Amino acid sequence: MASGFDQIRFNEAGLIPAIVQDVETGVVLMMAYMNREALERTLATRETWFWSRSRKAFWHKGETSGNVQRVRDVLIDCDRDTVLVMVEQKGAACHEGYYTCFHYRLGADGAMTVVGERQFDPDEVYGKKQP
Amino acid sequence: MASGFDQIRFNEAGLIPAIVQDVETGVVLMMAYMNREALERTLATRETWFWSRSRKAFWHKGETSGNVQRVRDVLIDCDRDTVLVMVEQKGAACHEGYYTCFHYRLGADGAMTVVGERQFDPDEVYGKKQP
Repeated sequence: MASGFDQIRFNEAGLIPAIVQDVETGVVLMMAYMNREALERTLATRETWFWSRSRKAFWHKGETSGNVQRVRDVLIDCDRDTVLVMVEQKGAACHEGYYTCFHYRLGADGAMTVVGERQFDPDEVYGKKQP
Repeated sequence: MASGFDQIRFNEAGLIPAIVQDVETGVVLMMAYMNREALERTLATRETWFWSRSRKAFWHKGETSGNVQRVRDVLIDCDRDTVLVMVEQKGAACHEGYYTCFHYRLGADGAMTVVGERQFDPDEVYGKKQP
């Protein structure tokens, strides 16, 4: 039987990029990849599941750290090849301990400087940090 | 001479995913791919440039439609394999005429329903729509 999932354009490796955004602050937290089963688990459990390309294994975000992402909404783009997952983030999203993985600014010469959560409401961010 | 760009992890096709977010509304508008030169052009011109995988050509966003994206900031993640471009969006970002490309909700069964800009400030969004 045809499924809605058949319309989704997974890439040649069977993966789709998944952008994760904090629904409360609007901050883009990370991007990772889902295969069809990870996407189905995400939609069914309302917590984020990814496919780790390096470990070749499912990755239930927050399983070790406790920093789970509760899924509020899953959107897909016009090309049906990228998903946007709106979540409530517990603690920090980045394994380096930052609230967001996007904590480096890229200069015109390609130099990277740490910017942390600078551009967002510090009260929100510090309130969400890991102890 | 070593360049900051050498630290960036482009994929096997020489591309890096670039998430584009509206700096004013926080809405994630689209995701596309940049090669090194598109990224350099984006940083130098402060407007977004991508590499079209289907057309195998540079793509200066808004060149045809006028809906250019003025670049306010370019961030990169902890893995150095995804960029987040903070822009001021002129008009609509999506070629289907929507403000954001992410205008479909994905149901638990994979079904897609149009949601438009529902989850964001309508005044902001309607003010930004194409005439």
